[in-house]
Amino acid sequence: MKGLWLEDKTITYRTDLPEPEAGEGEALIRLRQAGVCATDLEMTRGYYPFSGVPGHEFVGEVADAPGCKDWVGKRVVGEINITCGECAACQAGRPHHCENRTALGIQGHDGVFAECFTLPVENLHVVPESVSDDRAVFTEPLAAALEIQEQVQVQPDMRVLVMGAGRLGLLIAQTLRLTGCDLQVGVRRWEPARLLAELGMEPIFIRDIKENAYDLVVEATGAPGGFEISRKAVRPAGTLVLKSTFAGDLTLNMSALVVDEVRLVGSRCGPFAPALRLLAAGLVETTPLIDARFKLSDGVRAFEKAGEHGVLKVLLAPD
Amino acid sequence: MKGLWLEDKTITYRTDLPEPEAGEGEALIRLRQAGVCATDLEMTRGYYPFSGVPGHEFVGEVADAPGCKDWVGKRVVGEINITCGECAACQAGRPHHCENRTALGIQGHDGVFAECFTLPVENLHVVPESVSDDRAVFTEPLAAALEIQEQVQVQPDMRVLVMGAGRLGLLIAQTLRLTGCDLQVGVRRWEPARLLAELGMEPIFIRDIKENAYDLVVEATGAPGGFEISRKAVRPAGTLVLKSTFAGDLTLNMSALVVDEVRLVGSRCGPFAPALRLLAAGLVETTPLIDARFKLSDGVRAFEKAGEHGVLKVLLAPD
Repeated sequence: MKGLWLEDKTITYRTDLPEPEAGEGEALIRLRQAGVCATDLEMTRGYYPFSGVPGHEFVGEVADAPGCKDWVGKRVVGEINITCGECAACQAGRPHHCENRTALGIQGHDGVFAECFTLPVENLHVVPESVSDDRAVFTEPLAAALEIQEQVQVQPDMRVLVMGAGRLGLLIAQTLRLTGCDLQVGVRRWEPARLLAELGMEPIFIRDIKENAYDLVVEATGAPGGFEISRKAVRPAGTLVLKSTFAGDLTLNMSALVVDEVRLVGSRCGPFAPALRLLAAGLVETTPLIDARFKLSDGVRAFEKAGEHGVLKVLLAPD
Repeated sequence: MKGLWLEDKTITYRTDLPEPEAGEGEALIRLRQAGVCATDLEMTRGYYPFSGVPGHEFVGEVADAPGCKDWVGKRVVGEINITCGECAACQAGRPHHCENRTALGIQGHDGVFAECFTLPVENLHVVPESVSDDRAVFTEPLAAALEIQEQVQVQPDMRVLVMGAGRLGLLIAQTLRLTGCDLQVGVRRWEPARLLAELGMEPIFIRDIKENAYDLVVEATGAPGGFEISRKAVRPAGTLVLKSTFAGDLTLNMSALVVDEVRLVGSRCGPFAPALRLLAAGLVETTPLIDARFKLSDGVRAFEKAGEHGVLKVLLAPD
C-alpha cells in the first residue's frame, strides 16, 4: 500500500506499507481526501513519539466492514479516538478520555495519510450528500472547535476574543460567531485580517488588544506568545480556553490566576454530529481555508507547505 | 494608636499610628479579634508591595459611623474588598474584581492588626449573637472556602481531593464535606491526619494519592509541590481549583492540559452571608483550628508563630 510514514520525527512516502485489514466491528476505509493539522506538524517536532502512518482528518469510503455490511460503500468521516468502552472514563460517558484509548494517526493506531486505513464502525458518521469532500474533510477540526461550547457556556452578550486566525482559529471563530457574541479575532498580519473581514468577522491587531477586556478568550495560536496575550486579554473571573497542543511548557503566575479568579480550560476533540449539521446547513465556510492540494506521493512537500508561516489547510488525496 | 506596621517586608509593633477616622458611609471599627492568614505571611515575603497596617480577618465593634448611626455598637465582620461601584466589573455584578478596588490590609487600605480601622458600612455583616468572637473571626476564610462552590458545581457523587490540611484547607474540606461528596484530604504528616479523623473526614497521605482519580481537586497547600500532586490527581476533564496565593511562577505542560481537557480555576474571596449561616448553624468546626493567641503588642511573635510549619490559626487581640 502507498502512504506516508512517520518515524523519528521524519515523514517519508512509502509504497511498501502493509495493507490494513478490518476486524469484526471495524471498517476498512479508502481515503478520498485528508487534511494536514497542526498536531501532525507537532508530531514531526516530537510532540508524540508516534511511529506509523500519520493523519486523522479525512473523508473516505467504506471498502469493507466485516459483520456490518450496511456500511460498505458509505462516504464517511470518523472520530479519532478508539476507545475500550469498559474503563471508568468510558463508563462515565467520557470516551474521549478512555484510559486505554488509541488515536488515529497519533497514538497506537495507523492514520489516514495512506490509501486505506481502519476504524471501528462506531466511530463513523455518514456524510450527507450535500456536503462535498472538500467540506467534509473539515468535520474533525470543526468538531474540535465545537468542543469549546460543550465545555463553556458562551452567552450571546459575551465579549469574545479568538487569538489566532490559523486553520483552527478560523473554524473556532466561525462557530462562536453563530452564538451572536461580540467577537474579535486577534491577528498579526494583514492577510488573515482581510480573510476575516471577507467572512464577516472583525479582526483585531495584536497591538490593539485591550487587557482585561474579554469575558472569553480562546488561545488558538499554538505559541507561548499567543498564550501571554490571551492571558492578559481575559477579564478577571473570565474564561481562557486553551485549544492548541504544542510541545513545551508554559509559565504562569499562580497568584495572578488566583487573584483574578481566571478559569483555564483545556479543550481537545469534539462532537462530529453537530459539525456535520453546520457543514450541511452551510453555516461554516471552508473554501477560503484551503491553501494547497497535494497527492499522497507528494506528501513530504505537503508537510513542508503546511509548516510554512501563514498557510491554512493543506489537503492530501490519493494518487 | 497601637498596632502592627508592615514596611519593606518587615512587621513592627508601633504605638504612634495615626487614629483612623471614618468618613461618610464608613464605619470606625474597634478590633475584638483578628486572625493571621497565609496572605499576611506572604506579604512579609514580598507577595504585595504593601506598606501599612496589615490584617484582614477580624471581628470588631462599630465605634462610629457618620450618617449611619444604626451601626454603632454592632458586632461585625467585614468584606475585605473596598470597591468603587462604578467600574465595568462593579456594574456587571463582580465587585470582588472592581478595577479600582483597595483591599483591607493588603492593598491601599490599612488593615485590622491595630486598635481601630475603617471600612465602608456596606462591607459589614452583623454577627449573630450565637456566634462567638472565636468563631466569627473565621468568617472571611470560610467565605473564601465557599467561593469554590460559587464557581464550580460540586455534585454529591464526585470524588474530591483537598490538597493540604492547613488553615484554609481544613475550612475548605469542611464546606465540601457538607455536599455529601466522596472527600479525601491530602496530608504529609500524622498530626493533620489525626485532626481530620477527629473532624470526621478522611485523610490520605501524599504517597497514597492515586493519579487521575478525582473529579475535583482543590490545591490549598500554597506550594508548587502541592500543585504538582494536585495536577496529577485530577482526572481528565476534571477540575482543579487553585486556592492559594503565593509569590512565584508555576510551570505547566500545556499539551497535557489540552489533551486531558482539565479545567483550572483560580479562586479567591467569597460570600460572607453563607459563611455566617454555616457558623451560626454549627456546621463548621473552628475551635480545633486555633493554635495560638497573642496580644497586638506581641504581634511580631504572632507572625513568627503563624509562619512555623504545621501551625494553624494564630489569633490576635487588643491588649
